[in-house]
Amino acid sequence: MTENFQFTLSATDGMARRGQIDTPRGEIRTPAFMPVGTAGTVKAMYPEQVRETGADIVLGNTYHLMLRPGAERVARLGGLHEFMDWQRPILTDSGGFQVMSLAKLRKLDENGVTFKSHIDGSSHSLTPERSIEIQKLLDSDIIMQLDECVSLPAEHNELERAMELSIRWAERSKKAFDNAKGRALFGIVQGGDNAVLRARSASGLTDIGFDGYAVGGLAVGEPQEVMFRVLDETTPQLPSDKPRYLMGVGKPDDLLGAVGRGIDMFDCVHPTRAGRHGHAYTRFGVVNLKNARHKDDHRPLDEASPNPTARRFSRAYLHHLVRCEEMLGAMILSQINLSYYQELMAGMRNAIENATFVQYCAAVREGWTKGDLPALD
Amino acid sequence: MTENFQFTLSATDGMARRGQIDTPRGEIRTPAFMPVGTAGTVKAMYPEQVRETGADIVLGNTYHLMLRPGAERVARLGGLHEFMDWQRPILTDSGGFQVMSLAKLRKLDENGVTFKSHIDGSSHSLTPERSIEIQKLLDSDIIMQLDECVSLPAEHNELERAMELSIRWAERSKKAFDNAKGRALFGIVQGGDNAVLRARSASGLTDIGFDGYAVGGLAVGEPQEVMFRVLDETTPQLPSDKPRYLMGVGKPDDLLGAVGRGIDMFDCVHPTRAGRHGHAYTRFGVVNLKNARHKDDHRPLDEASPNPTARRFSRAYLHHLVRCEEMLGAMILSQINLSYYQELMAGMRNAIENATFVQYCAAVREGWTKGDLPALD
Repeated sequence: MTENFQFTLSATDGMARRGQIDTPRGEIRTPAFMPVGTAGTVKAMYPEQVRETGADIVLGNTYHLMLRPGAERVARLGGLHEFMDWQRPILTDSGGFQVMSLAKLRKLDENGVTFKSHIDGSSHSLTPERSIEIQKLLDSDIIMQLDECVSLPAEHNELERAMELSIRWAERSKKAFDNAKGRALFGIVQGGDNAVLRARSASGLTDIGFDGYAVGGLAVGEPQEVMFRVLDETTPQLPSDKPRYLMGVGKPDDLLGAVGRGIDMFDCVHPTRAGRHGHAYTRFGVVNLKNARHKDDHRPLDEASPNPTARRFSRAYLHHLVRCEEMLGAMILSQINLSYYQELMAGMRNAIENATFVQYCAAVREGWTKGDLPALD
Repeated sequence: MTENFQFTLSATDGMARRGQIDTPRGEIRTPAFMPVGTAGTVKAMYPEQVRETGADIVLGNTYHLMLRPGAERVARLGGLHEFMDWQRPILTDSGGFQVMSLAKLRKLDENGVTFKSHIDGSSHSLTPERSIEIQKLLDSDIIMQLDECVSLPAEHNELERAMELSIRWAERSKKAFDNAKGRALFGIVQGGDNAVLRARSASGLTDIGFDGYAVGGLAVGEPQEVMFRVLDETTPQLPSDKPRYLMGVGKPDDLLGAVGRGIDMFDCVHPTRAGRHGHAYTRFGVVNLKNARHKDDHRPLDEASPNPTARRFSRAYLHHLVRCEEMLGAMILSQINLSYYQELMAGMRNAIENATFVQYCAAVREGWTKGDLPALD
């Protein structure tokens, strides 16, 4: 533990990096996957179950928490860690992304964004300063600047305008953050799929100076190859002594590709959402437990999994729970998916240390390509 | 453990009885509350969490399981214990009650009942023999006879007809059960709110001879005082050396009153269903966590609860989870309610041993009457 935020790189393998972020609330082994606890809970899981999957840090959504239960209320209740009983690090986003994707009647100008809540239609505003204030009220360990994220494909002018605005908001965020002790502030690189804009964004943010750099504006509609190309062009522009965070990504194959391109941190609702929809991530790839082929299958999802829950119940039982829409199905599959994601992160960390990252990824992808066990006769 | 089913009474206090049922899958301390695992899962809980609340046995619903995943399928998969990974005793009902309350286009005659599934409209039939067969396929430890349960209020003729039919079905059930080794068969007393019919039912069943006797046809619309009067009239008619099971009951106050009238076993969906609807059972009575009075309340539900989960999270957090319809809210409140029910059963068992049952019930009721903590200013 440290009183302040610190990033240490311990190994590299190609562009892939193995490191550790030390925070006053504990260390974050990188590359790291952060489960998403949107409304103060990683859906369908107790906090200790999230920890047991191997997560060092979870993400909280500023947009959801500012609306319910409200940032000032969370602060009065002792902060988000106390509120949800997760005592390890928490990263909060700025709220900007969900304002754009969820809120109604948005209006954005130089100062910030005003919007109506998707829950009750109440009016709210978010500025770079207010976003930082909310994240401090939540007692976040890693705070994100407010930015403007543009969906792809987009016009060059639009990408440029949003990227420049995001840099001005980054400056205001840095000022509002005011070197808060024990917390970190990350800037967010924008610029869409344009290498020149991305480079200008990275340069502008680096000049301001942040504790970490996120790549935003990806996983917003573009093909994976575009995302990977943008990472190839962008991560070399970022300081090597700070963590790099690819926001809102992704599926397992995205994680392999992005770590191989120098990314250290990820968050995504996908593993828990997929679990609630009956999809299990395994070394065989995705297994759709709604499929009737499982209804008489006495075999566990993966008898060789290091996760006891993936070895415990039969596929037939999981199929039954999913078909009956039983909560236990969502609980088990959320656990299985987050465990698999963490297994993948641990595997990549280990491979980077052993300089076998390329081989590790090839072996994992080969398993996915082979696909699921043959159906029973 | 025993190879066979055995009931031992160790203490009585007034009509209240303290005992133990030994089964090949473990002992059941009585008075016992059985959480309901309708479709092969106690909703929103892992099996070990159910056990940790203090449950010795769970109930499975034959109606639900025969429709999904199907009794023959459960048997092929190793039985219900294996299917849901609950290795302790399971009691299954006969399916009759849910046929009457859930299924469509029911048709009942001397032979049994035919109906259409509420899930997909498929046709099924249930006879006393088929019900026993299904329960054996599920590998149930305690099997219930098929009976006909009539809602109250009802005409005398209707109650009498259903009661007499239930005795004939009891005979057929006994024959079909065929003294299955390591399993128990319970008969079900019917007769509505009529003491003469109840006595005739008890006598008829006792003549056939069962391992236990259930009181059915209560908690079907009548006031609590009618239920208690029927118990006063019925339990003395039942053999004292066999367990007595009050089906589908109830709320905490029903449990106190029924144990005081000689009942040994209960099942009810109420604690888990109430939990999914934001209601918590505590020594203060029922706490409605949807209520806005909790939104800023940093206090746990009950700081003196023996259940760590009831001491762990603030009322404000539980309120938040319930308002956001987060699964974790249902998970926590199901756990808290089942724990409170088991705490009550343990308290009654202890009080009967110490011949302080009346005082125990009075103290518990006094706590409920005082009600919840005063709201914070």
